[in-house]
Amino acid sequence: MARITSIEIEDVRFPTSLTADGSDAMNKDGDYSAAYVVLRTDGVAADGSPLAGFGLTFTTGRGNDIVALAARQQAEQLIGQDVEEMAADMGGVYRFLTSDAQMRWLGPEKGVVHLSLSAVMNAAWDLAGRLAGKPVWRLLADMTPEQLVDVADLRYLSDALTRDEAIELLRAKESGKAARIAELEATGYPCYTTSAGWLGYSDEKLRRLCQEAIDEGYNHIKLKVGANLADDIRRCTIAREVIGPDRVLMIDANQVWDVDQAIEWTNALAPFDLLWIEEPTSPDDVLGHAAIKRGVAPIGVATGEHCHNRVMFKQFMQAGALDFCQLDAGRLASLNEIVAVLLLAAKFDVPVCPHAGGVGLCEMVQHVSMLDFVAVSGTREGRVTEFVDHLHEHFTDPCIVTNAAYSLPRLPGYSTQMHPASVAEYRFPEGSYWRERHAAAAASANLAAAV
Amino acid sequence: MARITSIEIEDVRFPTSLTADGSDAMNKDGDYSAAYVVLRTDGVAADGSPLAGFGLTFTTGRGNDIVALAARQQAEQLIGQDVEEMAADMGGVYRFLTSDAQMRWLGPEKGVVHLSLSAVMNAAWDLAGRLAGKPVWRLLADMTPEQLVDVADLRYLSDALTRDEAIELLRAKESGKAARIAELEATGYPCYTTSAGWLGYSDEKLRRLCQEAIDEGYNHIKLKVGANLADDIRRCTIAREVIGPDRVLMIDANQVWDVDQAIEWTNALAPFDLLWIEEPTSPDDVLGHAAIKRGVAPIGVATGEHCHNRVMFKQFMQAGALDFCQLDAGRLASLNEIVAVLLLAAKFDVPVCPHAGGVGLCEMVQHVSMLDFVAVSGTREGRVTEFVDHLHEHFTDPCIVTNAAYSLPRLPGYSTQMHPASVAEYRFPEGSYWRERHAAAAASANLAAAV
Repeated sequence: MARITSIEIEDVRFPTSLTADGSDAMNKDGDYSAAYVVLRTDGVAADGSPLAGFGLTFTTGRGNDIVALAARQQAEQLIGQDVEEMAADMGGVYRFLTSDAQMRWLGPEKGVVHLSLSAVMNAAWDLAGRLAGKPVWRLLADMTPEQLVDVADLRYLSDALTRDEAIELLRAKESGKAARIAELEATGYPCYTTSAGWLGYSDEKLRRLCQEAIDEGYNHIKLKVGANLADDIRRCTIAREVIGPDRVLMIDANQVWDVDQAIEWTNALAPFDLLWIEEPTSPDDVLGHAAIKRGVAPIGVATGEHCHNRVMFKQFMQAGALDFCQLDAGRLASLNEIVAVLLLAAKFDVPVCPHAGGVGLCEMVQHVSMLDFVAVSGTREGRVTEFVDHLHEHFTDPCIVTNAAYSLPRLPGYSTQMHPASVAEYRFPEGSYWRERHAAAAASANLAAAV
Repeated sequence: MARITSIEIEDVRFPTSLTADGSDAMNKDGDYSAAYVVLRTDGVAADGSPLAGFGLTFTTGRGNDIVALAARQQAEQLIGQDVEEMAADMGGVYRFLTSDAQMRWLGPEKGVVHLSLSAVMNAAWDLAGRLAGKPVWRLLADMTPEQLVDVADLRYLSDALTRDEAIELLRAKESGKAARIAELEATGYPCYTTSAGWLGYSDEKLRRLCQEAIDEGYNHIKLKVGANLADDIRRCTIAREVIGPDRVLMIDANQVWDVDQAIEWTNALAPFDLLWIEEPTSPDDVLGHAAIKRGVAPIGVATGEHCHNRVMFKQFMQAGALDFCQLDAGRLASLNEIVAVLLLAAKFDVPVCPHAGGVGLCEMVQHVSMLDFVAVSGTREGRVTEFVDHLHEHFTDPCIVTNAAYSLPRLPGYSTQMHPASVAEYRFPEGSYWRERHAAAAASANLAAAV
């Protein structure tokens, strides 16, 4: 028997704004950050190491401490819990943490308290995987349809998807599981790269990175757009020149447009043969996305990285407002909510192409996409998962991408443990990196004052 | 010239859970709380007192410290700002505070960072009113249509309401302003009471409070429902017995139902002749509310206290999903967003009946309803604003309700300054009330251990 004995909550920030990595029309200077949760136990993992769970949510810098504070208050409620009992009823753990009506008021089910809940539950899922000695995708794929549906948060969804329908959907995919796992072992799960197309990169860097992406085997490239139409036309021209007519190009506006403007701007870029326009407007605007979808077809509409919960995804699907579901593993409240969205997407026949990048999102969404293929949708057709090649070196079990495909995760857990040295260096503001940077800034200010 | 010289952020909590005040099917034990923001300046108000701004947002207890932390980070950016420049461009102040893309990631425009933004901007509006020597409703009502539209956040709304349409709407209401202000001075703005109908009250208390409400002149009574249908039928029976067939009865489910269940349960209570069902399901579910509206007509659908921003309200109106718009002055990001919602409601001809209660919400929404009547919708027809008679004694300029109507606020500002003694007593956890309560709890635990 093992119990959770203590928690650690860390505010970890990486200085990505220095290199314009991650820059887009809305987010010009993000410092990719993680509110990082460690659940310590008095148990021992299958490999003999101390049993613990490691989870995170992703933010872009300032305010990461606010999410960390919320995560602390939520995670403290798990201290003393029996790990085996938790792992046997992860739906119950989720309901326990979401049953605090006072905290619920701060959302409900959105914003800081939902991001922090994601971090805490992600750690709980990592712990459950380590206890079982399985990667999280496998832990879930091995469940019966009833067990998997019991994990999913179906509250408020019954007008679109009943529990019985969900079980039926999963039952229909049971027979091919072993064959699909074998396929994943052989070829992995297809991904695309955003690393080439950040808005802050020069034309030369864009051209070089597009060529490198092709050389690495990528078939899909995504560019950030929306700050200036002439720039977008020039950058799309460069990208098409490099990748040729047969590879796939997507664009991402990061919410900068109103509805009518989104339609006009996207159509102005239509000659570049685009698969999708991503986040054309406010992520809350279901009906706006539906109007944009009608206005830009056959270009598809993609959104989801800021879609804050399953009730919003339900409506996007009911309204026929999205062609690609880009759920985010740090914004939805962990696999409990993600499984519900995968089930909705399967029912509405919407391909799930998870958002990734940031810190640790790639590590998580590989599990999500594998699970979707093995147990829920049963297909990789028309699906491609985001990959951004930043910051993986900080993880003990980083995702591996080969030939434009994620390799099947094999180690127990959710792949979200960070190296203790990385945490010590980038903990904000007292980690060694930030202390040195602040000291250098102070010295330079003193020098300027002296001159 | 005056500048903001310092800020104070307070986590103030009142122990309302002890008396079941505020209890409903979702929120059984709220401790009504305020994340309270004070903007100090080096200026002097019209009455010779030190010029400052006082604002708040409302929460139900735990997590109020999280909102306070976010408010601190936002308010700190105002230190050093020129108060007259701020007051002359409140739209600019709002855009300045919402332009931090790193903080935006934590919403966007929802949850903790939006609640805290509301508190900070509410304080800024209070400050602007005090600088002008006007109550905030009057400050806004005295603006030209162009000035008022410049204050409003119309981003993402242009597919439903353009700037030109908004100006036209306001211009059409300019001529009758003085007459409407005179009407308000004479008769106030109609309100209803929720104080009778909390779920945790006994039948006897419900009966007594309904009678008292009638005696005080109320024409509308609202009951909390949704925990148990037999209880709801019994409580509606009691309420109807007391208020008779001609007064108005509303019910409020506080989000406990799925869509189909909401339709069934509400229709089961239809014999009690209900004006509206409030918060029947998830506050995010625009399409669900539209289905419920179709399923329960002629009972109206009301929602808004958890509607997190103007983009959601836009969709509720576009989808024809609500009959009564219950915007919340502590959840929307202050008057900048509220004015946008008032304009949308005027365009879509939806009556605005603001949510109130909690701490300080009544003090704020009286300004909102007065402004709506004087300058935006131009009518009180079919409108009634919530009033709950709790905690007003903690404010220096509490709302005054006479004969079931809010009196026109006359003092400068937004009526949201709390008595310093109240803050000192209920500051959490170090205020005198909470220190004494914790000491008493510890003593009682020691006594139990000794016995």
